[in-house]
Amino acid sequence: MSLHEKTTVVDGLQISNWSRPVLEELRTGGVSAVNATCAVWENAADTLRSIGQWLEVANRNPDLVFLATSGADIEAAKAQNRIAVFLGFQNASPFEDDYRYVEVFHRLGVRIAQLTYNNQNLIGGGCFETTDAGLTRYGQVVVEEMNRVGMLIDLSHVGYRTSRDAIEASAVPVSVTHSNPLWFHDTPRNKPHEVIQPLVDRGGVIGCCLYPTVSGGEHVTIEKFCGMITRMVDQYGPSHVGIGSDCTRGWDQEFVGWLRNGRWQPTDPRNAPAWPVWPNWFTGPLDFPRLTDGLVTAGLNDHTISAVLGGNWTRLFSEVMDTTKEHAHV
Amino acid sequence: MSLHEKTTVVDGLQISNWSRPVLEELRTGGVSAVNATCAVWENAADTLRSIGQWLEVANRNPDLVFLATSGADIEAAKAQNRIAVFLGFQNASPFEDDYRYVEVFHRLGVRIAQLTYNNQNLIGGGCFETTDAGLTRYGQVVVEEMNRVGMLIDLSHVGYRTSRDAIEASAVPVSVTHSNPLWFHDTPRNKPHEVIQPLVDRGGVIGCCLYPTVSGGEHVTIEKFCGMITRMVDQYGPSHVGIGSDCTRGWDQEFVGWLRNGRWQPTDPRNAPAWPVWPNWFTGPLDFPRLTDGLVTAGLNDHTISAVLGGNWTRLFSEVMDTTKEHAHV
Repeated sequence: MSLHEKTTVVDGLQISNWSRPVLEELRTGGVSAVNATCAVWENAADTLRSIGQWLEVANRNPDLVFLATSGADIEAAKAQNRIAVFLGFQNASPFEDDYRYVEVFHRLGVRIAQLTYNNQNLIGGGCFETTDAGLTRYGQVVVEEMNRVGMLIDLSHVGYRTSRDAIEASAVPVSVTHSNPLWFHDTPRNKPHEVIQPLVDRGGVIGCCLYPTVSGGEHVTIEKFCGMITRMVDQYGPSHVGIGSDCTRGWDQEFVGWLRNGRWQPTDPRNAPAWPVWPNWFTGPLDFPRLTDGLVTAGLNDHTISAVLGGNWTRLFSEVMDTTKEHAHV
Repeated sequence: MSLHEKTTVVDGLQISNWSRPVLEELRTGGVSAVNATCAVWENAADTLRSIGQWLEVANRNPDLVFLATSGADIEAAKAQNRIAVFLGFQNASPFEDDYRYVEVFHRLGVRIAQLTYNNQNLIGGGCFETTDAGLTRYGQVVVEEMNRVGMLIDLSHVGYRTSRDAIEASAVPVSVTHSNPLWFHDTPRNKPHEVIQPLVDRGGVIGCCLYPTVSGGEHVTIEKFCGMITRMVDQYGPSHVGIGSDCTRGWDQEFVGWLRNGRWQPTDPRNAPAWPVWPNWFTGPLDFPRLTDGLVTAGLNDHTISAVLGGNWTRLFSEVMDTTKEHAHV
């Protein structure tokens, strides 16, 4: 059995158009669990519909997938050769202006929520706003509520100040499910040391991301990407680095326009959004085994590779989602 | 005929529980037009219901009231001894995340919208947030859209930086419908010179406000309040000062809790919100004639009193709402 086959792989984020073929790519690629986005700009009602669609996918493919709600579900999925799907939001938009919706969506199975998606929202500043005023009054209420019910905070598309505020406000560790360090590729979607260090200090995990606009584009090499992970492990220790591929399987061109513009601005027909081209060594979940090989080549030991590919997410998910245990505050 | 009877009085804002008796108070008090709040925390669907209720009130009381859509409606209402009701939002929450909703609600009769209500929203910073990052990316789109359709921007409960950004971003003059200068009473709800001056420079109007928490409480005297208006007229000229009473007629105690907490935070039972006590010389729209007398006593001439009590709002409403005329950019 290869190292990849032995490893429990957890993908920190995918935003795919889920179907049996797309899910089968994960199983073939050896992925046992995934944070699956079910809301980006959607409000509460839109998201109910999205969750309904997920329930149907799960009902129709019980041999392949189940909706996961705890860290323990990850090892169960690995043992059963299935995929543990954690429903996640890439925006707090489904919570609208009502903190009670945090518990409502937790009850529906949502276990991870990014606080903002690119833009300012009711909770905090998004990474593409010019200025970020930090976590709002309502945002502080939502963070408390997420802590209480056991929903993991994600800061990937969040502004730096709001990220630091949320790390501090949260009573439990938080995540950046799919971003790289700013030094690797300079974009507001990646994180400076000033965000990563406090995240790590509080026990959080950052998922290094393969999406071309944050990893440097189609020409980034596997050596360079795995070298970044090695440097991250050296700098922050082996327990705080993971993978969040940000795979976007099964979508048409229209969906990338939705991601970019939502309903908040008109699409400029002269500058229609288009999907970026992925590097040839990682075009989807089928290429996860290559990533394992790349980490071996980069010199990481098996224990660290196992932590980066899944162990760290499993630890964090368990710590945050299992609210019956006392939280291990760092 | 008294000066008050001759004057066309426009109230920059009331947030009352509208019924025939409440509307009759306006007519008895000599008020010809009012910006009537129909949304505070409501989303689009909630607001449709609120507008539907308004349409019903208007249908049932055509001798008393009509839904106004242009500045010219104000003089028509005065001539007909009716009240021109301008539907207004105290929050951009009904626009949700879709700039197209600006035109939708304009078509339904909404002519005034405050950009934020106390808290951060998708558009900008609210006056009670610790920090205000200014007009957001979406906020810029919404301001353009409001300009295009002819909807007046209101900055009363908006943060200072977002206020300045909106004044600058707007192609037409904007309003503060119900706030006082910060020097008169120190609360984030009142405005510093650094907001009022650019508003005035661009042709806007600020409505001095009688709500006790922004005017200094039940013990503020009519002399002091009218002295503030005199000083405002001296400082900014007679064309940029109005009245926005912020009357809250007909509500129960529960509604003040809704204003304070919306759905965004739990009500603290040890600190339940309660309505403030109004000064005995102004307890509702019936007392508008006293205000006119107070302005006479304070030494303002009839022309200025007429401008402050209604002329300035009429000019601003016409300028912003009548988009078939070329805008008189200042």
